[in-house]
Amino acid sequence: MEGVDHLADERNKAQFDVGEMKIVWAGSRHAYELSDRISRLVASDPVFKKDTVTTLGRKELFKNTLRKAAHAWKRINELRLNEEEALKLRTFMDQPSFTDLHWGMFVPAIQGQGTDEQQQQWLPLANKLQIIGCYAQTELGHGSNVQGLETTATFDLKTDEFVLNSPTLTSSKWWPGGLGKISTHAVGYARLIIDEKDYGVHGFIVQLRSLGDHLPLPGITIGDIGMKFGSAAYNSMDNGVLRFDHVRIPRNQMLMRVSQVTREGKYVHSSVPRQLVYGTMVYVRQIIVFDASVALSRAVCIATRYSAVRRQFGSQDGSPETQVIDYKTQQARLFPLLASAYAFRFAGEWLKWLYTDVSQRLQAKDFSTLPEAHACTAGLKSLTTSVTADGIEECRKLCGGHGYLTSSGLPELFAVYIPACTYEGDNVVLLLQVARHLMKTISQLNSGKKPSGTTAYLGRAEHLKQYRSNVLRAEDWLKPNVVVEAFEARAAKMSFACAQNLSKFNNPEDGFQQLSADLTEAATAHCQLIVVSKFIEKLQQDIPGKGVKEQLGVLCSIYALFLVHKHLGDFLSTGVITPEQGSLANEQLRSLYSQVRPNAIALVDAFNHTDHYLGSILGRYDGNVYPKLYEEAWKDPLNDTIIPDGFNEYVQPLLKQQLHNARL
Amino acid sequence: MEGVDHLADERNKAQFDVGEMKIVWAGSRHAYELSDRISRLVASDPVFKKDTVTTLGRKELFKNTLRKAAHAWKRINELRLNEEEALKLRTFMDQPSFTDLHWGMFVPAIQGQGTDEQQQQWLPLANKLQIIGCYAQTELGHGSNVQGLETTATFDLKTDEFVLNSPTLTSSKWWPGGLGKISTHAVGYARLIIDEKDYGVHGFIVQLRSLGDHLPLPGITIGDIGMKFGSAAYNSMDNGVLRFDHVRIPRNQMLMRVSQVTREGKYVHSSVPRQLVYGTMVYVRQIIVFDASVALSRAVCIATRYSAVRRQFGSQDGSPETQVIDYKTQQARLFPLLASAYAFRFAGEWLKWLYTDVSQRLQAKDFSTLPEAHACTAGLKSLTTSVTADGIEECRKLCGGHGYLTSSGLPELFAVYIPACTYEGDNVVLLLQVARHLMKTISQLNSGKKPSGTTAYLGRAEHLKQYRSNVLRAEDWLKPNVVVEAFEARAAKMSFACAQNLSKFNNPEDGFQQLSADLTEAATAHCQLIVVSKFIEKLQQDIPGKGVKEQLGVLCSIYALFLVHKHLGDFLSTGVITPEQGSLANEQLRSLYSQVRPNAIALVDAFNHTDHYLGSILGRYDGNVYPKLYEEAWKDPLNDTIIPDGFNEYVQPLLKQQLHNARL
Repeated sequence: MEGVDHLADERNKAQFDVGEMKIVWAGSRHAYELSDRISRLVASDPVFKKDTVTTLGRKELFKNTLRKAAHAWKRINELRLNEEEALKLRTFMDQPSFTDLHWGMFVPAIQGQGTDEQQQQWLPLANKLQIIGCYAQTELGHGSNVQGLETTATFDLKTDEFVLNSPTLTSSKWWPGGLGKISTHAVGYARLIIDEKDYGVHGFIVQLRSLGDHLPLPGITIGDIGMKFGSAAYNSMDNGVLRFDHVRIPRNQMLMRVSQVTREGKYVHSSVPRQLVYGTMVYVRQIIVFDASVALSRAVCIATRYSAVRRQFGSQDGSPETQVIDYKTQQARLFPLLASAYAFRFAGEWLKWLYTDVSQRLQAKDFSTLPEAHACTAGLKSLTTSVTADGIEECRKLCGGHGYLTSSGLPELFAVYIPACTYEGDNVVLLLQVARHLMKTISQLNSGKKPSGTTAYLGRAEHLKQYRSNVLRAEDWLKPNVVVEAFEARAAKMSFACAQNLSKFNNPEDGFQQLSADLTEAATAHCQLIVVSKFIEKLQQDIPGKGVKEQLGVLCSIYALFLVHKHLGDFLSTGVITPEQGSLANEQLRSLYSQVRPNAIALVDAFNHTDHYLGSILGRYDGNVYPKLYEEAWKDPLNDTIIPDGFNEYVQPLLKQQLHNARL
Repeated sequence: MEGVDHLADERNKAQFDVGEMKIVWAGSRHAYELSDRISRLVASDPVFKKDTVTTLGRKELFKNTLRKAAHAWKRINELRLNEEEALKLRTFMDQPSFTDLHWGMFVPAIQGQGTDEQQQQWLPLANKLQIIGCYAQTELGHGSNVQGLETTATFDLKTDEFVLNSPTLTSSKWWPGGLGKISTHAVGYARLIIDEKDYGVHGFIVQLRSLGDHLPLPGITIGDIGMKFGSAAYNSMDNGVLRFDHVRIPRNQMLMRVSQVTREGKYVHSSVPRQLVYGTMVYVRQIIVFDASVALSRAVCIATRYSAVRRQFGSQDGSPETQVIDYKTQQARLFPLLASAYAFRFAGEWLKWLYTDVSQRLQAKDFSTLPEAHACTAGLKSLTTSVTADGIEECRKLCGGHGYLTSSGLPELFAVYIPACTYEGDNVVLLLQVARHLMKTISQLNSGKKPSGTTAYLGRAEHLKQYRSNVLRAEDWLKPNVVVEAFEARAAKMSFACAQNLSKFNNPEDGFQQLSADLTEAATAHCQLIVVSKFIEKLQQDIPGKGVKEQLGVLCSIYALFLVHKHLGDFLSTGVITPEQGSLANEQLRSLYSQVRPNAIALVDAFNHTDHYLGSILGRYDGNVYPKLYEEAWKDPLNDTIIPDGFNEYVQPLLKQQLHNARL
């Protein structure tokens, strides 16, 4: 049955041009061709095989990862891949490794926070991997609150050095990837102390290990922090612990682009604006939103294909059972996630534009849009990663029992994805930042400051406070303006209600604490509005290809109306819609599910994931699930022998009733 | 700092008698003392240590489990533990093993489905572990739909045998725990075929492996199905695959309590009612509900204790940062789960009573309450396992980054728990069964049939359809009748709306399919009503101990009002409450969170979990988290050597720029 496409019938049902949709998903023809070429390159390379990684013990897994990382670097050099191609190759390798942090955090930190001289000194070494770096910020006792870090860097005027020290156990650096076993250097964060005065947290380039024998340098205690969620997942990474015992580094290893310490121990600011740091956060978080759409698309692709393969119940007189994708309960859980993957993709695309816009303004010293851009990326990071984490697990459940096998790909996808809800800002902390921005925006309305960008709608307060949806029939819910106004009115009313409740407190900070649960809900409503709006804006663009725009329109409506149904309490309690209108939204949603059904397989094919990248037998392109599951089972180490290790010592004595003589 | 209780201040804040609460949680003084004694016995036994299991490779983990299972059996015999004590010992061992299925499924299947002779023949062997059994029902292609199983058992009149056969790949038995490597026997399910006529699925006792050399018997192909979710979790279990190639067993190995095949090949029913099977389902599912409360209580205990230890933000001028348990966002996520653990506990207690009641009625051939009892246990199984699975992951997120470490205990708790959402009935399929029962109950109202038990409220249709909550102030939401009536009215109106929509379809089965998503929501509302009602009924009992009943009252209100907030859309769209009343519920909820805060640590202490059973550094009783996390890290195999395996081959050449010469 090799070579047979078991999903051919499903593919033939599609009512749109899948090839064109692939380009829409990728963002451009160039992006599509790049991903397509590099993903196939990785998939065809035997060193990058990943089907047995979950059976490996920790040491073997780590060694396997080092091998892949080295091979990736070798191929990148042999094929003279450019930066964009190299990044894709590491992505499709799909196994977290120390190089992720080297390229993703260490190098960018030097680029962003280092002076020109520092960049000239360090980047050539880093770019050739002659040094390997990590990013050592979080500590055992300190995560989200960077200002609470305890590690100190005390300036020694006599020797012109900083002395790095971990004064307490809780100040141990904890979590940095690549730190535990591999990195030779770190960008480490510590409180700058000059003459007993604390200047707050700054970054420093610190050598950790000898470039000769790789042993930790004097004063440095370093190790791996142990096992994490999942079989393989991030256990391929040496997240590490690091303690400094009065470690000395030259003064010129403080990253001095924004502020400097002079030879005389004077702390001075450069002319470079501090706001650049926020620009970097916008950059990192827009990538996280993009990655959320990728991770969700992988889970949805697996669950959708398997739902078309799997049959259960509904057989009449020997006919095949019903494909589970035809059950309405399955559709009502799966299709909103399919729609969310597309929605997040376009939100990510827009955020990329936003980052470019903000960067250009920053260069022109225009900081006016930064707070709004910052709030908006923080919010979308929170929203998309939370939905994606839950969505992957929902897709696993949609695959029934077999989703629990690591060969389904879903347990590992979940385990490797969920840290995104915590790193780069805990998702609840980020929502509170969004809420703070919304409250500030509202408080400034009276002073005549016009809100801009994604908060512009708050300027139409009077209109929105009165807003009542005019939906009369289910089809009315397909109109973009009906949807956008309902989302705007709901978000605005929730924010204004919070602002009003806050005003009842004498101490605004106390009020913010007391009402924080409500504030996160208002922030969520605001973020959902952004995603809905950006999806609708995308549809207003010119999108070529037969039926492509129509399918996207269906997905956009599903995304929005699913949220109306899920958050019906918000929409009703704010009076934006009536129960009848809510019921019409639900009715329309059912009809949209039926419209998407024949296109479902083609819509996940449009993600263009290789079987290698999916890493899932349930999600195989050809749908040949059962024979491959059966084949895969025998590869488990437990099947190496018929009688398992331990049987003779621990089971045979029970069966033979010789337990009391056995040594246990 | 060993021996210091870092949470002593928290414990001193408690406003109730923790000792008495422990007894309420356990269900009785006897149950408390039993659990307390056996959990300490296991915790103090070095063979049962579990702190390194997540670092083991598959084979080592499996061997470690066989050792523990044998040791458990040895201790059970040495200490002459009774059945109840033995079960507790295996529970607190807390590592899935083949004995779980032997005692939990194989033995009960023979007890429930075997004739007296069969029981006399097989149970003595099974009870002494001279044979080890598993339960082989699900197949590669068939799970929830038992009637769709493909394995055949064909009666051979000549030899007086059944011939077991797996006609297709998809008919391979797949998933049974203990099957892969250990079981000598199985209760296997197959379609009974006599004279080419199919009599449907029946159970058979089949020997799988030789009692001499443990090799599979002729015609039997058998193996492990490979890795599953998590590091250790269910990878300690040999879930297996099994194919039969015309395997012959004597006729008397069909389980013949309910129906028999005679020597002449005649299929006859015994006088034992088929309904007994449903009694067994009620039994199994009430245990699952009980287990849900245990699993959720473990996660909540870890997250609550760590939330009191962890501090983040809010430091003013060098004072300690704020305990994260004091953040309202943390409380709004954590305390409803704490309340749910207690709510599920009492729901489980009530289900235990229901099972006893149903059993007694079945023995008296009274089947009248069976459909309602069946629907109600199916629904509570679905509700409690879904909430618990999500709740464990929410607790992990509430622990921030460190929750991702396996030493937090939460990743493994999640991985080992989630199959409960799928086994013994997929949770969505079960909700649809509840919905079917609700629709049937409603359709019989007109014919004058009075609904009973948990559906009795549907008999007050006219009253509930008109119902409008009379809540005026936040405190009104503390009144039990206010809460119960609101939940009854919401559930009733949702069910009646479904029934009305169903009546618009010509084909009722088609209607049921089309509206299935709405039907699951109505079923959920019904199940939540049951849990709320049973919690309130519990509070009407005599509960001794200072402050114990008051605390439970607070938790009950939190459970109910959290649901009102979460499902606000239901309550508003059915017109049961107004937006203002919803807002008052939320206000009351905030006040309840403040009331529970000082009691939070004591409320999780009342679960009486040992540190061994919790298996979590974050959830340690003494709160000594950071030093122990630090200590634990060094135990990882990756820290056995300073230079990791693979470094010299795969990393050194990069650093030395000798990549092109290196063999990769």
